[in-house]
Amino acid sequence: MRRFGEIIRVRPEAEEEYKKIHVKIWPEIEEAIREAGIRNYSIYLKDGMLFAYYEYHGPEEEFDERMAKLAEVSNESGWWTLTKGMQMPLETRQEGEWWASAEEVFHQD
Amino acid sequence: MRRFGEIIRVRPEAEEEYKKIHVKIWPEIEEAIREAGIRNYSIYLKDGMLFAYYEYHGPEEEFDERMAKLAEVSNESGWWTLTKGMQMPLETRQEGEWWASAEEVFHQD
Repeated sequence: MRRFGEIIRVRPEAEEEYKKIHVKIWPEIEEAIREAGIRNYSIYLKDGMLFAYYEYHGPEEEFDERMAKLAEVSNESGWWTLTKGMQMPLETRQEGEWWASAEEVFHQD
Repeated sequence: MRRFGEIIRVRPEAEEEYKKIHVKIWPEIEEAIREAGIRNYSIYLKDGMLFAYYEYHGPEEEFDERMAKLAEVSNESGWWTLTKGMQMPLETRQEGEWWASAEEVFHQD
């Protein structure tokens, strides 16, 4: 199992709407997340900063393929366009990232 | 089960040391966290910002008591003094907080 911590900013004017659409996300996105093998997915908000924690429970060798499929559903459904417009990525993110990956400095099961 | 997301800053000059002591935390702290009923505890770092995610799996009515006991061990062992000196709390934290609690805006099991 792989764990992920990621950070992005939410545009101040979009904060309420961002929260609203996440109270009950679109059924196709919920399903795509589940099918991707992602579990225990939380997003927290503090001072305009969004922090995501999630776990990938699928087979290691299917990770890239499953994430690509999830991105595809996210794209085609319009979810990606909608949420992307509400977010401001960190300048310090890695090339190819939107949400910036954070470094795990501690874990205890 | 209760989930928590919390944020604090690490002092730039203490970042390496903070990471180092968390690679293998003190056995009494590891044990105290476990006895408190805390599970799946991760801390992530990005741009000097620490983000903690953890779950409380103990009985709801014992939460306050268990957290007080954990704080006691943390205090008496010196862990609290050590880590506190490396951290800079957010000005926007709530009264009584050190790590600032973040708002859960999304969760999917």
